[in-house]
Amino acid sequence: MKIIIDAMGGDNAPEEIVKGAVAALNEFNVEIILVGDESKIKAVLANEKIDRSKLQILHTTEIINNNDHPAQAIRKKKDSSMVVGMKMLKDGIGDAFISAGNTGALLAGGLFVVGRIKGVDRPGLAPIIPGKNGPFLLMDSGANAECKTQNILQFALMGEVYMKKVFKMESPSIGLVNIGAEEEKGTEFVKECHKLLKESNLNFKGNVEGRDIPEGNIDVVVCDGFTGNVILKVFEGVFQTIFDTLKEEIMSTTRTKIGGLLLKPVFRKFKKKFDYTEHGGAILLGVNGPVIKAHGSSNSKAMKNAVRQAVLCIEGGVVESIRNEIETNENNNNNNL
Amino acid sequence: MKIIIDAMGGDNAPEEIVKGAVAALNEFNVEIILVGDESKIKAVLANEKIDRSKLQILHTTEIINNNDHPAQAIRKKKDSSMVVGMKMLKDGIGDAFISAGNTGALLAGGLFVVGRIKGVDRPGLAPIIPGKNGPFLLMDSGANAECKTQNILQFALMGEVYMKKVFKMESPSIGLVNIGAEEEKGTEFVKECHKLLKESNLNFKGNVEGRDIPEGNIDVVVCDGFTGNVILKVFEGVFQTIFDTLKEEIMSTTRTKIGGLLLKPVFRKFKKKFDYTEHGGAILLGVNGPVIKAHGSSNSKAMKNAVRQAVLCIEGGVVESIRNEIETNENNNNNNL
Repeated sequence: MKIIIDAMGGDNAPEEIVKGAVAALNEFNVEIILVGDESKIKAVLANEKIDRSKLQILHTTEIINNNDHPAQAIRKKKDSSMVVGMKMLKDGIGDAFISAGNTGALLAGGLFVVGRIKGVDRPGLAPIIPGKNGPFLLMDSGANAECKTQNILQFALMGEVYMKKVFKMESPSIGLVNIGAEEEKGTEFVKECHKLLKESNLNFKGNVEGRDIPEGNIDVVVCDGFTGNVILKVFEGVFQTIFDTLKEEIMSTTRTKIGGLLLKPVFRKFKKKFDYTEHGGAILLGVNGPVIKAHGSSNSKAMKNAVRQAVLCIEGGVVESIRNEIETNENNNNNNL
Repeated sequence: MKIIIDAMGGDNAPEEIVKGAVAALNEFNVEIILVGDESKIKAVLANEKIDRSKLQILHTTEIINNNDHPAQAIRKKKDSSMVVGMKMLKDGIGDAFISAGNTGALLAGGLFVVGRIKGVDRPGLAPIIPGKNGPFLLMDSGANAECKTQNILQFALMGEVYMKKVFKMESPSIGLVNIGAEEEKGTEFVKECHKLLKESNLNFKGNVEGRDIPEGNIDVVVCDGFTGNVILKVFEGVFQTIFDTLKEEIMSTTRTKIGGLLLKPVFRKFKKKFDYTEHGGAILLGVNGPVIKAHGSSNSKAMKNAVRQAVLCIEGGVVESIRNEIETNENNNNNNL
């Protein structure tokens, strides 16, 4: 099993990316191909203990930055670590691709380099978010600002496959983001989506309101990419705000500092529970191979977890299952015509 | 100054509503009309010290419940505390109306009983949310699931007036919810909204992403009611989840219990800072009178704060200012044709 990693993507590249790859090699039974500036990668590796037989470096000369225009960067920067890495996935040189780089470019590369699974209208980006009662998948979280109802149904089908194959859930529950529990709530668009999901064979639990999403009782939360992106970022923002504020207050007096020390195990446990990198990155579902978008600020631990996620995707046959699922669903639709 | 209060709306009616009214009478220079079941209201008042000369009770026989269909309830329950109260606002018997009852019915009543301000296409519901660096107004938070671009511009105009008149801000900043900072991001709809806001005389700061909303650096955050409702509820849900989880963990061992005790002042301060009832309820902007939707779970303190908010709205002349603002904006548009 070979995992291709974009060594140059993300705020902490290449140091943390390379260190994460090393940690993954030491923990999982995988081979890794690091794509990027060879001398920089080697400089990091010099300080690491590692079985070099399982690690390849593929030298590239270009980097896609966060300021690059996504589609243009994919078209023009042919020797960038991201484009070369995705091309290798497409060509079967590796089994999965991971990058912490420019999200838009990754989405464009998913479409134009890796390519869509036949029958998938729009691939979607799906982060695994820690909820109170368990992790859940949010799809789409920003690949498609505008969606058709058929896209939402496909997001649900693909998300279901992921939770079945990676989290070994028997019948993942599906929820549609809406502004009320009742069927007749929301825009015309979500009402249509509701109808489609209800008619499907999915374990559809109806609408899910913003208030209930963090509970984590729904395994696959579907919505258009505009709404999903807003949800994801509000999540991050509220967490950050709460912890920044608490930290400031705790550090303000001796009494509260001592209280903070005593609560260290609580905060540590809490941080682990709600660590969004615990289950890896966001997975781009609907393309011809496992493509994982690690958070831009990924450290080595986040990268290692992304490799674990890639392994689970490959072992679970996520891409093949999506292919079958979409085909079956298309056939059913044709039979119903 | 006379404030009309729906004594029967909300999870804790009439007890907490009536107690909140009493607290408001003791703190502010107002008169209050409690609308609802007279015997039940009097039963609560029996235990309260109060100057009855400033308090009227208007007996009604019906109640709009949360299960009632909003528009039907407004049409059919003519003697409900909500319909009668709104009718009194419309007729000038009182200067503002507050209810913690059925949100949908309140919105319907705003349109059909109180009526829109001339030129306002769609009134919007705007909660005041505590951000890290100050409170901000989110509009629309659910009155209009589908919006036209013109609605978003009017939300911004009305929100600006509110922040000027109630929070005494000189030039409130306006932000448009979007999935990226750049102008060209998002759906066709938000791109059009961006253009309209940029061309206006508003202090438009561009797009605001979900991550930045909780900071509270933008005073008026505008979006369609679907997006706004999701944002509001994710906010509530994440706060609730974090505090439930922390509480459970803190209560789990003696060490952490002691830590929790030492941190009491921190949590208290935090709770006050992020208490969504601190600035009252959500204001329905765009109708012919101040209509305030208090949270369904409002206690007496929340009701008292809603009365303060009503007083500030009346003193600031929010409704008159919106009327002028919308008229001026319409004239400008006509001159530009």
